[in-house]
Amino acid sequence: MTTGHEYVHGYSDFERTRLVDQATTLTEILHFDTSYPPGSLILEAGCGVGAQTVTLASRSGGAAILSMDISAESLAAARERTRSAESTNVVFQQADLYSLPFHPESFDHVFVCFVLEHLARPGEAMAGLKKVLKPGGTITVIEGDHGSVYFHPESRHARSAIQCLIDLQARAGGDSLIGRSLYPILIKAGFQNVRVSPRMVYVDASRPDLVDGFTRKTFTAMVEGVGDRAIASGMIDADTWNRGIRDLYRTAEADGTFCYTFFKAVARKSGERE
Amino acid sequence: MTTGHEYVHGYSDFERTRLVDQATTLTEILHFDTSYPPGSLILEAGCGVGAQTVTLASRSGGAAILSMDISAESLAAARERTRSAESTNVVFQQADLYSLPFHPESFDHVFVCFVLEHLARPGEAMAGLKKVLKPGGTITVIEGDHGSVYFHPESRHARSAIQCLIDLQARAGGDSLIGRSLYPILIKAGFQNVRVSPRMVYVDASRPDLVDGFTRKTFTAMVEGVGDRAIASGMIDADTWNRGIRDLYRTAEADGTFCYTFFKAVARKSGERE
Repeated sequence: MTTGHEYVHGYSDFERTRLVDQATTLTEILHFDTSYPPGSLILEAGCGVGAQTVTLASRSGGAAILSMDISAESLAAARERTRSAESTNVVFQQADLYSLPFHPESFDHVFVCFVLEHLARPGEAMAGLKKVLKPGGTITVIEGDHGSVYFHPESRHARSAIQCLIDLQARAGGDSLIGRSLYPILIKAGFQNVRVSPRMVYVDASRPDLVDGFTRKTFTAMVEGVGDRAIASGMIDADTWNRGIRDLYRTAEADGTFCYTFFKAVARKSGERE
Repeated sequence: MTTGHEYVHGYSDFERTRLVDQATTLTEILHFDTSYPPGSLILEAGCGVGAQTVTLASRSGGAAILSMDISAESLAAARERTRSAESTNVVFQQADLYSLPFHPESFDHVFVCFVLEHLARPGEAMAGLKKVLKPGGTITVIEGDHGSVYFHPESRHARSAIQCLIDLQARAGGDSLIGRSLYPILIKAGFQNVRVSPRMVYVDASRPDLVDGFTRKTFTAMVEGVGDRAIASGMIDADTWNRGIRDLYRTAEADGTFCYTFFKAVARKSGERE
């Protein structure tokens, strides 16, 4: 017998799903559960221009964050961004992910977001980060997966345009399909308690913030950004490209839908916490 | 400032995600929030052999369920299945989804699971179901999407085998990519408050129940089941097929991952509830 209580419980479970499924911004979808305890020291490896740094700093106001990147230019932009956001708990350092300048077991937690996709040797980077992590500390890795994209209406031109982005990233030594591989990468690097949580972004007209903020201005804009290189390299002809981009924007219309999945992995370094 | 309380709250949010992401069976993922109030009358349209009927009956024990299908043979199997499960709140009726034998506004709620993918005219079916639904009642539609599949290690042979399944279903008048289209189908049929909630099944070795129950015994077994037809029709040669199936099983090994997404839509018929 279903009781009134169980019915309410069923509805409450639905509310829980809704929290995740219907978050209206990418930041909520990726970071609603990114939070570190006061007093902890966090390494943000590969902060780039600081797109995630501000969120990290505000969601863990009591933690100290060391954000590093190999590019001085990116670090300058990240510094400016955290200054504008009035973050007071972030310091920056220029460093190479493959040759970290930190003592072993320096950090309570490590945070890596949209970095592995650009690396030729993600496993080596993970092993280096494990060294500077304290025993019992966690690593959080967030990556996209361009092979997780599908949409309505379907379009082979749009698929060809997306494939250019995937191929260009592969030529540059990266892997834009890395999201689905986080589990084996972290296991192979010797991490324990590896838990991967997919963060699917599902977009239809009932979610106007995501139609505009994700389908148009994040994903399609990103594909559009490699158009000149893709056409110049002979990967695709201009007509197919233009039609592909038009078809991606078409999925943002009232009867269109769009799907993309990010993967968030959290794993632990073995050993007792200090 | 992040307080200890907020950190706990962050963890609790993570627990909520986990409830959905890490459900260990497909039934939990699809149906944890399928529950109707006591006293309501539910139409299960296209019950087939009753695979969902038993779950529906047990999760809504106080509701009365009328399960219909066009096939007398399927209905006999569904009757037997509910009898074995000792369901006491289900009645069966043979009926055609395109020509429903019920008075308008007969049901409090309508439930449709894995049915639209087989129909040549899903929109027409939705319009018919809307007629027999009371004003203010809801329709729940659950469908898969074979275009949502990706896995590690990647394999073009596995992709070719899956494409055979998609093409065979299309030849039979169905659409195995229908999950992504539920939103526009329900909007076009005139339903309101259409909310689509993707149910992604993510599988890695940390989820052994899903490795065996989903990757091997649900998805790969389903693809394997059309092997004779696919090869006989000339869609694919036997070598490619066999390698594709082998590669799908390969994704169930310790370093493999597998992703598939179902879509669950809930929508309302306009008008005041009685």
